[in-house]
Amino acid sequence: METETLKGTKNYTPEEQILREDIIKTIKEVLERYGFNPIETPILQPYSLLSSKYGGGEEILKECYKLKDQGNRELGLRYELTITLAQYLNENPNIKIPFRRYEIGKVFRDGPIKKSRVREFTQFDADIIGIKSKLGDLEILSILEEVFKKLGIDFEIMLNDRKILFQILEYAGIGDDQNLQNSIILVIDKLEKIGRECVEKELIQKGLDKNKINKIFELIEIKGNNEKILEELGKKIDVGDLEELIKLSKICKLEKIKLVPSLARGLAYYTGSIFEVFSEKTKSSLAGGGRFDEMLSKLVKKDLPSVGIGFGIDAISSILKTEKKSNVQVYLVPVGISEDKFLPIVKKLRESINLDFDLSGRGISKNLEFASRNNIPYCVIIGEKELKVGKIKLKNMNTREERILSLEEAIKFIKKTY
Amino acid sequence: METETLKGTKNYTPEEQILREDIIKTIKEVLERYGFNPIETPILQPYSLLSSKYGGGEEILKECYKLKDQGNRELGLRYELTITLAQYLNENPNIKIPFRRYEIGKVFRDGPIKKSRVREFTQFDADIIGIKSKLGDLEILSILEEVFKKLGIDFEIMLNDRKILFQILEYAGIGDDQNLQNSIILVIDKLEKIGRECVEKELIQKGLDKNKINKIFELIEIKGNNEKILEELGKKIDVGDLEELIKLSKICKLEKIKLVPSLARGLAYYTGSIFEVFSEKTKSSLAGGGRFDEMLSKLVKKDLPSVGIGFGIDAISSILKTEKKSNVQVYLVPVGISEDKFLPIVKKLRESINLDFDLSGRGISKNLEFASRNNIPYCVIIGEKELKVGKIKLKNMNTREERILSLEEAIKFIKKTY
Repeated sequence: METETLKGTKNYTPEEQILREDIIKTIKEVLERYGFNPIETPILQPYSLLSSKYGGGEEILKECYKLKDQGNRELGLRYELTITLAQYLNENPNIKIPFRRYEIGKVFRDGPIKKSRVREFTQFDADIIGIKSKLGDLEILSILEEVFKKLGIDFEIMLNDRKILFQILEYAGIGDDQNLQNSIILVIDKLEKIGRECVEKELIQKGLDKNKINKIFELIEIKGNNEKILEELGKKIDVGDLEELIKLSKICKLEKIKLVPSLARGLAYYTGSIFEVFSEKTKSSLAGGGRFDEMLSKLVKKDLPSVGIGFGIDAISSILKTEKKSNVQVYLVPVGISEDKFLPIVKKLRESINLDFDLSGRGISKNLEFASRNNIPYCVIIGEKELKVGKIKLKNMNTREERILSLEEAIKFIKKTY
Repeated sequence: METETLKGTKNYTPEEQILREDIIKTIKEVLERYGFNPIETPILQPYSLLSSKYGGGEEILKECYKLKDQGNRELGLRYELTITLAQYLNENPNIKIPFRRYEIGKVFRDGPIKKSRVREFTQFDADIIGIKSKLGDLEILSILEEVFKKLGIDFEIMLNDRKILFQILEYAGIGDDQNLQNSIILVIDKLEKIGRECVEKELIQKGLDKNKINKIFELIEIKGNNEKILEELGKKIDVGDLEELIKLSKICKLEKIKLVPSLARGLAYYTGSIFEVFSEKTKSSLAGGGRFDEMLSKLVKKDLPSVGIGFGIDAISSILKTEKKSNVQVYLVPVGISEDKFLPIVKKLRESINLDFDLSGRGISKNLEFASRNNIPYCVIIGEKELKVGKIKLKNMNTREERILSLEEAIKFIKKTY
């Protein structure tokens, strides 16, 4: 039998899964404060939906898992949640917009197997569908700031607008060729990662002359705080949209937004503001999103300007260390007493505490080792001696300290300290 | 573009999804009280794993979705969570047993498309792995009783033991042919649904004579409370295991267990106690499980007697009506006031209340209609008049009643009533 999962897929242990669930819970709670509701769409989809003209595009479709059912229908596994959101909107034409929804679910990419390349992963998307106003963008930025503060991560929210990038290209004299523009934007996006020199080299390879490249850098390398960047950029191009969004963010006292004129985000379907949350410690991307006014509109044939965000659950997990390795608070060890004596105590403790207990009548040292190996913080030990005086023995598995307590005292003590 | 999901798959609306998530949360909380931790295994698996000799068996394998990746590897979508649990145990050989884990995830069956046949659904399994003692069975029964009481459902837990069924067949003189025995057990299992007459007919078709059939019914139709059934059954066959489990369940004051000697549960891999939670109102099955001492042992090549349960999230959803159609508690409507006036109020309210607000500057009646159509219980309306006196207008969307309140009063009021 297989002893390893498929490359690009992964088993999550309790320790990892508890952390993932805590992260998801934190994000959900913030989203619900902001008026979002959950939906769920199927993983299994008609291939014709996944390959829709205005869907994820050529590149992503190459990585779409295809399969057939017994009726020989062509099916596929969804590669992201926006295409299935579009299908959802089609199936539910009476939804009132703006529609704030979030969805958490698995998506699949049939990419080449490299060490770090994942082929099945959890996507967590939140979008406001059918809103043109910048208040929509502001809501998403506020959510990001609140989520990552709650998670206790050092972060910044890098903000830009796709329209800024196109204007910079125009300013540099790079005209109408949209394919060229998009490919240049992808190069510019790498500035923070690979540095100016490498970006310049790649731009030269794309046929840009020194003059054009300099004009690009003149604008994307403007340094300073957000006001300074807006002021300098504003001398050459129209920064009205970003200015408005920054003004709104100040009303809400958002502190973590940093304008980055080179930020591009790969996906061509963004039409306005774009943002990416970076961990300051690891320089990794934890969440990303932006405004996409056309994609859903084309797919659903209705005017549905939208703005949203996707959270990288595994990226966030990987920078958060958890202290909590088990949901279990107490492991109960009966010593030589019968079920009718200890089961009522189990029941009583479980009214307020997460408890596992020895089912197999092992010896006490084996039981203590079990609790210890499973990172359970307390053991409750009960033998004849304890029963006689109506008490239990509570053992702290870290300090090895033992206390003789009544049941009520033990419950209070555990709830106070764990 | 597709306007319907694939047959056998389903979109869940916020109303449905909120209910599903509430149910899942209730079950998780009970499981964690009982010392269970979550794991997650991949959906995408090597086909060789899914078709393992001791896996789900021929029938289920026929319904396994097969696919290939770009490297031409043979893959499949998991059809249940036990086979991936076995892989997990193989990958993590140092797990301390007994191992209490739960997993929630999508599973897939490529069955014929019938109206009610689902091909993608959420499985919620909880198992104790590596425990021979009946205390394990007792834990699962206690969990079932607690979960369904918490969910507020009228239910009973039907209990039997596979060994009882085999003994009944022996008593009726139906000997060693295991295939015949299993097929008879499948017929007997239908007694509660189709009645004695239909079961008799099917048994005759299987070649059983009147005498044998009568002996079967003599035992499976014993009526009365659990004690009576054990007493009567005990005169003909060995009921020791069930007796012990019933004794333990009494120590824990379980009230919902009903012995049903005809209960069989289809799956041949059960080796001991089997149980099924039935809704008294709809007579539908809401959860089912039992003891399976051999399956994991064979797959993992280690002695891993186990007992567990699977919850039918959709079956449970379908009998629970929810009052709560949105997570949003308040919809805020600014009337002719600027962002710097209402955004701080939004922020303040969101410290304790789930709030959506008008992003698009619509008129008040459109906004009230929006809130109403989205089942949001309260609107907060703020115009110049309210701002001047430092108050807000709170409108109950059910009663249409309006109150002029300070922000603090409004928060208190909403939290008290919703």
